[in-house]
Amino acid sequence: MIATRHLDAIGAIVGHKGLITDAADMRGYEIGARYDEGRAACVVRPGTTEEVSRVVAYAVSNGIRLVPQSGNTGVVGGSTPDSSGTQAVLSLDRLNAAPEIDIPNRTVKVGAGVRLSALNEALAVHGLFLPIDLGADPMIGGMVATNTGGARFLRYGAMRRQVLGLEVVLPDHDGTILDLTTGLRKDNASLDLKQLFVGTSGAFGIVTKAVLEVQRLPQQVATALLVPRDGEAIPLLLTALEEACGEYLTAFEGISRNAMKHALGHVGHLRNPFARGEIPPYAILVELTRSWPERAQELALSDVLESVLAEQFEQDDALLSDALVGRPEELWALRHSLSEGLKAAGHVIAFDLSLRRSDLVCFRNEIIPLLATEFPELEVCDFGHIADGGVHFNLVHPGKPDAAYIGRVRAIVLDIVIGRYRGSFTGEHALGRSNQSLYDHYTPELVKRLSGSLQGALTEVAIGNVRFSAAI
Amino acid sequence: MIATRHLDAIGAIVGHKGLITDAADMRGYEIGARYDEGRAACVVRPGTTEEVSRVVAYAVSNGIRLVPQSGNTGVVGGSTPDSSGTQAVLSLDRLNAAPEIDIPNRTVKVGAGVRLSALNEALAVHGLFLPIDLGADPMIGGMVATNTGGARFLRYGAMRRQVLGLEVVLPDHDGTILDLTTGLRKDNASLDLKQLFVGTSGAFGIVTKAVLEVQRLPQQVATALLVPRDGEAIPLLLTALEEACGEYLTAFEGISRNAMKHALGHVGHLRNPFARGEIPPYAILVELTRSWPERAQELALSDVLESVLAEQFEQDDALLSDALVGRPEELWALRHSLSEGLKAAGHVIAFDLSLRRSDLVCFRNEIIPLLATEFPELEVCDFGHIADGGVHFNLVHPGKPDAAYIGRVRAIVLDIVIGRYRGSFTGEHALGRSNQSLYDHYTPELVKRLSGSLQGALTEVAIGNVRFSAAI
Repeated sequence: MIATRHLDAIGAIVGHKGLITDAADMRGYEIGARYDEGRAACVVRPGTTEEVSRVVAYAVSNGIRLVPQSGNTGVVGGSTPDSSGTQAVLSLDRLNAAPEIDIPNRTVKVGAGVRLSALNEALAVHGLFLPIDLGADPMIGGMVATNTGGARFLRYGAMRRQVLGLEVVLPDHDGTILDLTTGLRKDNASLDLKQLFVGTSGAFGIVTKAVLEVQRLPQQVATALLVPRDGEAIPLLLTALEEACGEYLTAFEGISRNAMKHALGHVGHLRNPFARGEIPPYAILVELTRSWPERAQELALSDVLESVLAEQFEQDDALLSDALVGRPEELWALRHSLSEGLKAAGHVIAFDLSLRRSDLVCFRNEIIPLLATEFPELEVCDFGHIADGGVHFNLVHPGKPDAAYIGRVRAIVLDIVIGRYRGSFTGEHALGRSNQSLYDHYTPELVKRLSGSLQGALTEVAIGNVRFSAAI
Repeated sequence: MIATRHLDAIGAIVGHKGLITDAADMRGYEIGARYDEGRAACVVRPGTTEEVSRVVAYAVSNGIRLVPQSGNTGVVGGSTPDSSGTQAVLSLDRLNAAPEIDIPNRTVKVGAGVRLSALNEALAVHGLFLPIDLGADPMIGGMVATNTGGARFLRYGAMRRQVLGLEVVLPDHDGTILDLTTGLRKDNASLDLKQLFVGTSGAFGIVTKAVLEVQRLPQQVATALLVPRDGEAIPLLLTALEEACGEYLTAFEGISRNAMKHALGHVGHLRNPFARGEIPPYAILVELTRSWPERAQELALSDVLESVLAEQFEQDDALLSDALVGRPEELWALRHSLSEGLKAAGHVIAFDLSLRRSDLVCFRNEIIPLLATEFPELEVCDFGHIADGGVHFNLVHPGKPDAAYIGRVRAIVLDIVIGRYRGSFTGEHALGRSNQSLYDHYTPELVKRLSGSLQGALTEVAIGNVRFSAAI
């Protein structure tokens, strides 16, 4: 659907292996990780920032709609083309030169097309890592564009915290390259422009390169599965562990009985960690890490964890009813199999909610009975990052619910999350085509208006799959 | 210089104690902490966000230029009026209601007019603190507006990292109140608008309230003064300590011999920590902290530090030539007396530089001989936050240098910092009237243009003392 003369012109910029128009070769770029699938007019794969700039300038000048894409592992339709067949996918996957690791600065300069796994492999040689822990294996460009969070947010924060610098191509007639890659830790000499490109799904500009702060790779890990006395004990337990071993605490992940049940039932290699096989209503995976190896005289980290848990049990009205210190690989395998287990159990109506962490238990206590009354066929299989208020609130339907049904479920859940708890409908998955309607419905008019004005100040045309304002 | 009818109208909004026009009463609001001093037409002190909004709406509609001010402890003329006597100081010092501390969330909601010390006093009762360590005692509004850093940035980052939410009044005809105080840790449901108000000196909007993440107050502290073998050993030593005790490391502060000499010479209560009294060319204050109390079995933190340092000495070609484990109060007293010592020593030409931390030693090796040749009368008395690349590069002149001389010194230093090292002329002091000319001169045209466009998208009039673009 893009005229041959345009394809020729773009081909002249990016060269032979930079332009794909063959339907079969385009498929991988058209299918999203979870839900969405579309049709591209072509896939453009620039090999350098300068080529990105020239492609953008050409596309803007000729009315070609671009969808930036890197790893395409997102789950909200942020990086796949729509079904019109008129959009050009701008893939950043060739911006994947070897990361430039800077040991004394503890930073790395890395292209948008480098996979997280590849980056971490290169960093591991130096005892370093990018501390974003995910099931998927995204590329750096998309991680910045979605402000990826993950399971170790409690210690390390989201991508925004790791980003010291960005190189961005702006969607304007010049394909302006904005170089913000000085990589300083402290700098208040201007507006911190790079913040506008973090978590905005490419709509403000195309991230081509990032300077990231990286961290010492943990050398000691200790994990346990905790069973809280009851729901009310969960936030108290989190506070108690923050008090007892704050610097070591890297994860505090909640797992509901239903979520664990499906993982154990459907994912082959998992072992039920509970001795008598009985899964508790709710369990918490807690992880401590240390970035240095064991030292003589110093208590091993697993002993620290054991002693902290023992102290908890010794208290009157203990918050814990059970605790299993287990091997990290085994407990994390269970945690990372939850999504897979649910998919095998039925149709998943998935939510990536965020609340204040103190509201998580109240929300659960309120929504579960309500859903049981209104939608008794749904099974609540939630799990989440309790320490930062993130909940993957997943509902499993035994059959094939239609769009109207799903819409009613979503409205009930989100009206409570946003209306009553001032929570968010997308804690860490960011925005894409799949949740644009939620943005339009739930975002305050003032925020939409200001976001639109700001987008207008940086961009000349709409780019990607997110509209921050109706006016753009 | 503001017409009586305007003063009457503003007085009607803020009430009797909310409007100051008496010259003597205005003095405290007209004098900055370090350099600048101006004259205000009046000082307006709203008692609520709604009053701020109504004052702003009135001022915008009637062409009255506002200068937002909170603690007025900044050092770059960000919050004092100019000498014209036509500006109205908008003081936020009455937005000082008791902070709302939220224990399970480990957050606090706090007004712009609350002092850091008052906030930390309220938090300490719960074993919490806002981990920004400073010599001054600013208010929260200014800390957000300047993105305050400090001496424990290595562990905790700057204010930007602590800010989970903001309430802001926009400088428009409605005095629009932008409420971004949901205080979620994870939220990617819209552009993260609050980032625009962090570190922009009030020019994008007036911060009236903040939701901050707070941290566990350290329960164990161990400090030492290290003497590196030579300059080249400094970054290696930092990496070695990050490897050996990363989670504990909260400060790695460099102190030059000259800076230490003046503190010891001019500040009464300090004791020379070096046994034979000889100050080494460069020393590093290193601090480890733990957020939990000492536990039986667990090595005390001071023993951890001793053993880590002992390991360093045991190595071939050791990076350290000396190390004194000392009392935290004593070593920090020395660190926090450096500025005072310099002031007593002569006229200080001060720089708040930021470089990549790997460049600090090279920069020093380059600039010190150059200054010695060009300006032999200047004494380099630098100290700084080595782990994050911040340097308080201070030059002491024995006499009273004139503006032209200071200008030549500044140009030589900054041309190297920015031209050669891509560093920053304001690492943590942010922007104000005093360094506007540096912004105009050193900031890339593209950054200025985009910043101006963005400012124009949020604001209807200029506010405060910073111009992000000539067009605003």
